[in-house]
Amino acid sequence: MKLSRLFGLHSVQAALDYSPKKIHKAWVDSGRQDKRLTQAVNDLLDLGIEPEKVDRKRLDRLADTNNHQGIVIEVEMPGELSESDLKTAVENLASPALFLVLDNVQDPHNLGACLRTADATGVHGVIITKDNATGITPTVCKVASGAAETVPVYQVTNLARTLRWLKGEGLWIMGADGETSQTVYTTDFTIPLALVVGTEGKGLRRLTKEQCDMLVAIPMMGQVESLNLSVATGVLLYEAVRQRLSAVK
Amino acid sequence: MKLSRLFGLHSVQAALDYSPKKIHKAWVDSGRQDKRLTQAVNDLLDLGIEPEKVDRKRLDRLADTNNHQGIVIEVEMPGELSESDLKTAVENLASPALFLVLDNVQDPHNLGACLRTADATGVHGVIITKDNATGITPTVCKVASGAAETVPVYQVTNLARTLRWLKGEGLWIMGADGETSQTVYTTDFTIPLALVVGTEGKGLRRLTKEQCDMLVAIPMMGQVESLNLSVATGVLLYEAVRQRLSAVK
Repeated sequence: MKLSRLFGLHSVQAALDYSPKKIHKAWVDSGRQDKRLTQAVNDLLDLGIEPEKVDRKRLDRLADTNNHQGIVIEVEMPGELSESDLKTAVENLASPALFLVLDNVQDPHNLGACLRTADATGVHGVIITKDNATGITPTVCKVASGAAETVPVYQVTNLARTLRWLKGEGLWIMGADGETSQTVYTTDFTIPLALVVGTEGKGLRRLTKEQCDMLVAIPMMGQVESLNLSVATGVLLYEAVRQRLSAVK
Repeated sequence: MKLSRLFGLHSVQAALDYSPKKIHKAWVDSGRQDKRLTQAVNDLLDLGIEPEKVDRKRLDRLADTNNHQGIVIEVEMPGELSESDLKTAVENLASPALFLVLDNVQDPHNLGACLRTADATGVHGVIITKDNATGITPTVCKVASGAAETVPVYQVTNLARTLRWLKGEGLWIMGADGETSQTVYTTDFTIPLALVVGTEGKGLRRLTKEQCDMLVAIPMMGQVESLNLSVATGVLLYEAVRQRLSAVK
């Protein structure tokens, strides 16, 4: 855990809902009054935290943006987990593995939206790369709407090595690749899986692609070449949910 | 069509790919040189458009942002289509209807991402509301990555009336609603459909919900309450694609 500032009603409410004990301090805009802000202040007071009333400019500086909706909190942020944490997790799975692997994803909005979907689809964890990629930042937490606090995020230095190790543990490595002819709808998602998604535009790196046991494409019926990264990830993870729910019946 | 300024390499490339004849004028940063910018300039020259070289500040003003990546173009923007255009389209469908209806969606990023997915899933059109909602803006076009030029967007003043009319034309109105017990995976998406998605956080308006023949939920297995709007739309539209592809076999 590390101390970070979070801002925005959605993000603060997420922290209040999911990790109220991790909130250390709060500041609110002294000139602002609205229902949701008052609610957040009351929730903070219930936790014994009295928000400091400050003017808007001070809040802009505290948040390092003016997009804070009148509230900033200081909170212990979820830290990225290590490769050895990942090993422990993989060795103790109670159901067929479902990991999401994000290869060099740099946009915090994409990482946040993917974490939100990862929570909703019950993945066992999200694996991100250390270099040329974003970690868990306040923006990621804000976009993730609480999922950064609930989904284990493992940060690895050498993704190809991690994927090789996962294969040794019995997982299949499935790469999302727009160029391949096999579609998600003719692919078995009920097997233990690590689903690898690359950066928007560039896709998977060569070394990552070489570790994949299979490549799958989402059908594209129109003229655009690809989907938004978080939309593509949602379609893939929900196909796993659909197949796994119907396999249980 | 209306004249608007587009900026950013992705957006300009989309205009070059999808509607090159609609580009009227171009400006580029005289102090900037990179491969993709040079490529875009060459493509413009091939069209007989010589980009005017200007300094960065002028470009910032032309784009009304500094996030233009060195290029701004003036282009005939796709206009929203009318209710009578929608009637013509519905009366001339060659396959079971699939319309996406966005109820008061205000965020241009969400609209853009939804248009991109709408193109990819081959929907017949996207219906948006006129009041309290975003229309097709340059940001929408940029995020849509070309889909704003390929997907028909119908703007209606009274959504409840339009939905009633669509029902009269034989379409089923399916509303996305997190509160309902019926999931997307026990729902038939092969029937003629208008799929209605509400704003993030608030969901469908009461008057919209009352017009729905059925409500469906996306299963949420974790702790977050909802998905990002464009991710949820992607999951729903791709379930329609999956069912319709397998119905054809």
